[in-house]
Amino acid sequence: MKIFIFTMLAILGFIDVFGQTASAQADPLPSWNDGVTKQSIVEFVAKVTKKRSPDFVPIAERIAVFDNDGTLWAEQPTYFQGLFALDRVRALAPQHPEWKNTQPFKAVLENDMKAFAATGLQGISELLRATHSGMTTEEFNRTVKEWLATARHPKFNRPYTDLVYQPMLELLAYLRANGFKTFIVSGGGIEFVRTFSEQSYGIPSEQVVGSVIKTKYELRDGKPVLVRLPELVFIDDGAGKPVGINSYIGRRPIAAFGNSDGDFEMLEWVTTGTGPNFGLLVHHDDAVREFAYDRTAATGKLDRGLDEASKRGWTLVSMKNDWNRIFR
Amino acid sequence: MKIFIFTMLAILGFIDVFGQTASAQADPLPSWNDGVTKQSIVEFVAKVTKKRSPDFVPIAERIAVFDNDGTLWAEQPTYFQGLFALDRVRALAPQHPEWKNTQPFKAVLENDMKAFAATGLQGISELLRATHSGMTTEEFNRTVKEWLATARHPKFNRPYTDLVYQPMLELLAYLRANGFKTFIVSGGGIEFVRTFSEQSYGIPSEQVVGSVIKTKYELRDGKPVLVRLPELVFIDDGAGKPVGINSYIGRRPIAAFGNSDGDFEMLEWVTTGTGPNFGLLVHHDDAVREFAYDRTAATGKLDRGLDEASKRGWTLVSMKNDWNRIFR
Repeated sequence: MKIFIFTMLAILGFIDVFGQTASAQADPLPSWNDGVTKQSIVEFVAKVTKKRSPDFVPIAERIAVFDNDGTLWAEQPTYFQGLFALDRVRALAPQHPEWKNTQPFKAVLENDMKAFAATGLQGISELLRATHSGMTTEEFNRTVKEWLATARHPKFNRPYTDLVYQPMLELLAYLRANGFKTFIVSGGGIEFVRTFSEQSYGIPSEQVVGSVIKTKYELRDGKPVLVRLPELVFIDDGAGKPVGINSYIGRRPIAAFGNSDGDFEMLEWVTTGTGPNFGLLVHHDDAVREFAYDRTAATGKLDRGLDEASKRGWTLVSMKNDWNRIFR
Repeated sequence: MKIFIFTMLAILGFIDVFGQTASAQADPLPSWNDGVTKQSIVEFVAKVTKKRSPDFVPIAERIAVFDNDGTLWAEQPTYFQGLFALDRVRALAPQHPEWKNTQPFKAVLENDMKAFAATGLQGISELLRATHSGMTTEEFNRTVKEWLATARHPKFNRPYTDLVYQPMLELLAYLRANGFKTFIVSGGGIEFVRTFSEQSYGIPSEQVVGSVIKTKYELRDGKPVLVRLPELVFIDDGAGKPVGINSYIGRRPIAAFGNSDGDFEMLEWVTTGTGPNFGLLVHHDDAVREFAYDRTAATGKLDRGLDEASKRGWTLVSMKNDWNRIFR
């Protein structure tokens, strides 16, 4: 009889099969060093999930939003989506002999990043048109997936999807195990991020918010397709992030994770709501294992966030000191 | 000992507590009359959920999309959001004495729907500006909720949220019990629909797609708010529905439910994908219990859908014959 009672308790989750009580489980955040940073996360999760706590939050309201570039994966020497666009120009160049003499393509093909930068917004817009529009959504997704499967990061010589941060993967899993629904809220293209969000982060496409290019529904040989047009209809960055969250999620998250001033308003929006909330910024201060950059960075600038994190009660992560492992 | 084995099997779901096998449960669609319509739904669900079936669909891909007006709740004499706008004009009129002599407000205040119709798109745009913009998202949501709590439908003299269709509630629950994620894809305003989607349909705000008004993030007395601006940035109707689905959900659903030609492209998009899929149109043919309208209706016109449903393999629901109950 005893063995049956034991088995039933195990099935019901009151004890695990090793006979320990469920609360004494393994550390869910092993890549995070012990200290105030890790403690702030664990304490927040504990208080919002504890029934009868004044800070208890029902499961439906446990929404956590994560920036992608620089928060879930690396973003140097520039956004990986930008590197994808540059690679696409090189791949498509044989079909466009005129690019040899047209900016910004000439600069890209000659690897002259200074000349490319000089083409400014007009150059970026041209690059976007040539590499991100004019195809169906399915064709675009396939192209991105092929690139992710073959391209290598210039510094680490590893696939880009290897450069996701192990501590953040643990954090995502930890939050989900505690009833949170995790969303990406990225300045990057929503369809670009979706090509790897499920596999890399366990985040399904319907939980990805990002910048949006215009698409048009049309029939090709009687088959419907969505065609990507050269027009950005929504930029999910800065003050656009709360707008995107409201449009796609429709409620105020209680936790926000970012790394740059492009995430400032997202954290502000989340941490000024009523009820318990949590804001966290990842500070890239590890030149040895990854990159060190902040106030003056061209990509992922973190300036105002560094100044205000403390007074706003946001947790500031030192990658160097708080993470014992960087990549998965 | 026997009682323990019995209890454990019950806990594990192999038998229910009445001793029946789990497969012989009560009809999950009691408001649907037996017949080919109901059968088409049940057979589709059975084949995509049966492991080792050639039509098996993994849970993550079981996405079902529902139009709202005329599919999940009634839409006559016109869209309920339109009736909300008219009621708002009446409520706000004392603060706008000039409306007595300005169209389209004059027509609304005089209940002259012919004169209102004559103001055309310009009139609707003015109405939208006056009733749907110029406030924060929180203020708007509160106003809609107050209206839903107090307003009554002109024909049925019941709150609008009483006019959701019981058979569709059962269908939503049935799909969810079979691993589907259910989404609303409405031509109505996304924030309007979200004020009741959770309570009325069990659909959380992050699973609502709809038409989108521009919002702006700003600080008021140091507190961030989102302000609704008088500009529609996305119309989620007709060919806009596949666009909205792609933007918000990011994958092709396998089942789509609508009732008007505004849902045509959504059903087309869903039922021309590879793999098993299902399309259904609700035909309003019950003048006694609800309304009868289709090819010439000003609201919820169903013309092309009626012609093509059969050849496209879409299920056509006769409210009169297929539903033994209309409202919840």
